[in-house]
Amino acid sequence: MSQKIINTDDLAFLLYELLDIERFSQFPRYEDHSRDTFDAAIELALKVASETFAPHNHACDEDEPRFENGKVVMRPEVAEALKVLRETGLMAASQDYERGGMQLPAVVAQTCIGLIKGANVSTQAYAGLTIAASNLIMAHGTDEQKQRFAEPMMAGRFFGTMCLTEPHAGSSLGDIKSRAVPQDDGSYRISGNKIFISAGDHELSENIIHLVLAKLPDAPPGAKGISLFIVPKFLVNEDGSLGERNDVILAGLIHKMGYRGTTSTMLNFGEKGGAVGYLVGEPHNGLAGMFHMMNEARIGVGLGSVMLGYTGYLHALDYARDRTQGRSMTERDPATPMIPLIQHADVRRMLLAQKAFVEGGLSLCLFSATLVDEKKHAPTAEAREAAAGLLDLLTPIVKSWPSQFCLEANSLAIQVHGGYGYTREYPVEQFYRDNRLNPIHEGTHGIQGQDLLGRKVSMAGGQHYQALLQRIRATLEATRGRDELKTSAELLSNALATLEETTSALQVIKKTDPNRALANAYLYLECFGHVVVGWLWLRQAQAALKGLQEGGARQPAFYQGKLNTCEYFLRYELPKPLALAEVLRSADRTTLDMPLDCF
Amino acid sequence: MSQKIINTDDLAFLLYELLDIERFSQFPRYEDHSRDTFDAAIELALKVASETFAPHNHACDEDEPRFENGKVVMRPEVAEALKVLRETGLMAASQDYERGGMQLPAVVAQTCIGLIKGANVSTQAYAGLTIAASNLIMAHGTDEQKQRFAEPMMAGRFFGTMCLTEPHAGSSLGDIKSRAVPQDDGSYRISGNKIFISAGDHELSENIIHLVLAKLPDAPPGAKGISLFIVPKFLVNEDGSLGERNDVILAGLIHKMGYRGTTSTMLNFGEKGGAVGYLVGEPHNGLAGMFHMMNEARIGVGLGSVMLGYTGYLHALDYARDRTQGRSMTERDPATPMIPLIQHADVRRMLLAQKAFVEGGLSLCLFSATLVDEKKHAPTAEAREAAAGLLDLLTPIVKSWPSQFCLEANSLAIQVHGGYGYTREYPVEQFYRDNRLNPIHEGTHGIQGQDLLGRKVSMAGGQHYQALLQRIRATLEATRGRDELKTSAELLSNALATLEETTSALQVIKKTDPNRALANAYLYLECFGHVVVGWLWLRQAQAALKGLQEGGARQPAFYQGKLNTCEYFLRYELPKPLALAEVLRSADRTTLDMPLDCF
Repeated sequence: MSQKIINTDDLAFLLYELLDIERFSQFPRYEDHSRDTFDAAIELALKVASETFAPHNHACDEDEPRFENGKVVMRPEVAEALKVLRETGLMAASQDYERGGMQLPAVVAQTCIGLIKGANVSTQAYAGLTIAASNLIMAHGTDEQKQRFAEPMMAGRFFGTMCLTEPHAGSSLGDIKSRAVPQDDGSYRISGNKIFISAGDHELSENIIHLVLAKLPDAPPGAKGISLFIVPKFLVNEDGSLGERNDVILAGLIHKMGYRGTTSTMLNFGEKGGAVGYLVGEPHNGLAGMFHMMNEARIGVGLGSVMLGYTGYLHALDYARDRTQGRSMTERDPATPMIPLIQHADVRRMLLAQKAFVEGGLSLCLFSATLVDEKKHAPTAEAREAAAGLLDLLTPIVKSWPSQFCLEANSLAIQVHGGYGYTREYPVEQFYRDNRLNPIHEGTHGIQGQDLLGRKVSMAGGQHYQALLQRIRATLEATRGRDELKTSAELLSNALATLEETTSALQVIKKTDPNRALANAYLYLECFGHVVVGWLWLRQAQAALKGLQEGGARQPAFYQGKLNTCEYFLRYELPKPLALAEVLRSADRTTLDMPLDCF
Repeated sequence: MSQKIINTDDLAFLLYELLDIERFSQFPRYEDHSRDTFDAAIELALKVASETFAPHNHACDEDEPRFENGKVVMRPEVAEALKVLRETGLMAASQDYERGGMQLPAVVAQTCIGLIKGANVSTQAYAGLTIAASNLIMAHGTDEQKQRFAEPMMAGRFFGTMCLTEPHAGSSLGDIKSRAVPQDDGSYRISGNKIFISAGDHELSENIIHLVLAKLPDAPPGAKGISLFIVPKFLVNEDGSLGERNDVILAGLIHKMGYRGTTSTMLNFGEKGGAVGYLVGEPHNGLAGMFHMMNEARIGVGLGSVMLGYTGYLHALDYARDRTQGRSMTERDPATPMIPLIQHADVRRMLLAQKAFVEGGLSLCLFSATLVDEKKHAPTAEAREAAAGLLDLLTPIVKSWPSQFCLEANSLAIQVHGGYGYTREYPVEQFYRDNRLNPIHEGTHGIQGQDLLGRKVSMAGGQHYQALLQRIRATLEATRGRDELKTSAELLSNALATLEETTSALQVIKKTDPNRALANAYLYLECFGHVVVGWLWLRQAQAALKGLQEGGARQPAFYQGKLNTCEYFLRYELPKPLALAEVLRSADRTTLDMPLDCF
């Protein structure tokens, strides 16, 4: 393949053989769709990704946006690429027909945006944030807000942001200081300082719609006193035309390790008396609305991590096939020609690890995206609730697992390149720097671990957790008698038993000593994530075996590769986090008890 | 402390309480020295590091050397700092008095250069490479070469490089194409292209002495046909004055992810007929000489990784103590003040992991440096041989372990900083980029793993490996009856048994199927490294317990911190690589057997 964004065989395998997304055309919402329309959208996205987004990825890293005379100046390719994307209509891929959308399943829409991410995550971010922000307004806004703000966003005329973090309060949203004062006309005047606002200012779109968390004068303290506001950069008149400049100013740009093409901004609201804002949803209930966007953003972060890892893997694979170096360990004659890197077992180990991480991560993200579709549009309420619960449970894993292990994949891609991989002349070094953001934003690993163990596993009486176990057991059951999958099934089965015991032990301790039970929540997140991805790998192996035995659409080597990689993941990767199960199960106090003056 | 390069308490603990380097003043070579002179050198180095090297570390990252009109242009602070360092005499810290050196033990010299590395690894590299190159000439050169080239290097007037890699041959040195043609006057004419030559060109010193690998016309193929040459940038007349420009030109600079202050160059030798070179050592035996330098460089890489990790840890610790965020998990009242980050268990976990990696890594590097002293200057031949053998065995671990886990520490330092850590406004992001080089140069992890399992463990009939086991067992024996160390000793003892079984199994398989036995050598390296560092942690805990019980020179909290961190390392970190012992022991074929067309 000439593009190194995705293995299209793998994508088709995941979407159609693993996840069977053709079944969505039986959902009433998607009844006009078929595999043909899905594939057409995906092919269009891949074309735009490889022809329009990929070519300037490196340039925007070397020549990042600048703050000049109060404005953001950046390379022209960014605006050009976003214009092309806008014209495809893909920014509204999953939206209703009557709002100008394509009404495609979320899994297809995510696939399309994922391909753009893999080509150029920084330029993509302007579009990705806009899609997420418009989705939020569509879910929680008034009809007028939808029409005035969300529709121009879906059309790509306005771009969006999410303004949560303040200089003194990152993860601790309850402590934000931004204020919103109600006005007689029903609007609000917003003031406060926000930091790390991606795409917070630029000249790429007619307008920027900020979604801002702030507190009303009568707000109770903490997270229960947060409200959510639309604050446009330019006011929007009733007829949709732009009015005057709102009281939001760019205080400065932040310079990052990677992701450099996306502006990261400090924004000051209300320096001239208050920025005009419009309440979204109920007062003091802004976090619920923002979490709608944030949960979507968390899947987006996971998918972005995967796609950065994926493109790095394809670059490394290509390099390992082409570049010769050394000889086999048993070849004693130095006059023989050098062999390709890929013929060294240690290089194959690094490629297998990358393959396991990125294809496993992609299966996780796409599976989660199918849950979004099922949650919203499955025919029965029961199916919708089950999907919603499972998605809720998996969200911390979808956010954190790829951002840890696909970053690791990027590191391995550098390692395969040797010294060349460390230079800015090869793209793998940028992927690594770009991907290092993902373990941080939209909630660190520590936050995700607490969310999983402290809340998600036990929510609704633990029923979603139990339902997941049930699904995993069903897969194990279905592999019974399949010799080719026996080893993998055994490895997963043992890990599952360990996870269950660990969970039960921690749930008991949590009742009396939550600090202790949650002290190592991060390790729990790692174990849980590996079991989930291990399960999805076993499902991939199942589907591959079917393809192999029934003459599926792909080459036998493709299917065989899936079987081998499944076994690699379960044998070489799964044991590492599980090795700490005993530490977890005993709710070990080492990290909790370290006295502060002993560091 | 105002500097964030080292915890001086920790350094004193490691040098005097763990390694008892005062004993070296009983070695005849070091008889003029005492703790006072050791400390004076270290204090001087720390002063130069913090006052002269640290201040421009960030500036040289943002404003890296440029190639202009055939010359390298860089910020003036680099030359200024190197001048200050030169004037301290520390560049010849370990050299003979009669060569202008201080005749300090290697462990003290390494400590001094390590502090400079922690302050500014890029500017340090010009000096570090010079020290290593002059050491090589002192060990393998003729008297004339020592006087003409090495002495001006030790005085800091000439700088040095090592020129191994060529564009087509990185790790595969036997395949280099550079040629050396003997001349009637006993010199050689060198031609060929070298790449990734650190400090390969600059205007920082009067001259640059390249140590170049090339092949003579009658060279046998492969690594046994490599010879080593001195190739100066400017010829050096008999009286030591500089002659004409040699036929070496700077073909271009390479732009790296980090370590940006150090030029990485492409050098062309002999474009005008051949660069004048002088043979070092015997013809065709150049690799032995270069490995002298390379083994030293490998310890240097390990130490550099440690020091980058160490400074990152101190920055993270400082930030975690100052920055407030959120509340304890059991604090329900959002009106209470936010607490410092360090009070969150997950942040303490990240700090403990960093402490375990960087203090463990430092103990490994300093212990290895004491072996350099013992190998050269211990009173008995037996002690010298034992030290030489152990150093040889440990070299792949000293190179690889810190470059893996202290890079991980740098990642955790970013994570502790949250979003701020990803910005170039905070130094931790640079440390992470700088440190990413270390797993690559001077032999990748894969190469080190093969060296350890394929060669080092079994060399000399396995006697050095057995001697190491013996040392570890002796430590375990000495902790018997110490309740405070019981858990740690048990954890290490189990891991040691696993390592022994794994080694034995692989040695058997190696005899009949070396490809299979060595396929997962990298995993073996990880296990071995963790056991060695675990052993050094137990020794640190032993020394700390002594300090605690006998009222040592440091605060009780310091010693307690060592005990806790030892337990953390053995409980939380040691199990992870060991979880793959079974895969190793069975010489699993998964990575070996993955067909090339299945990726």
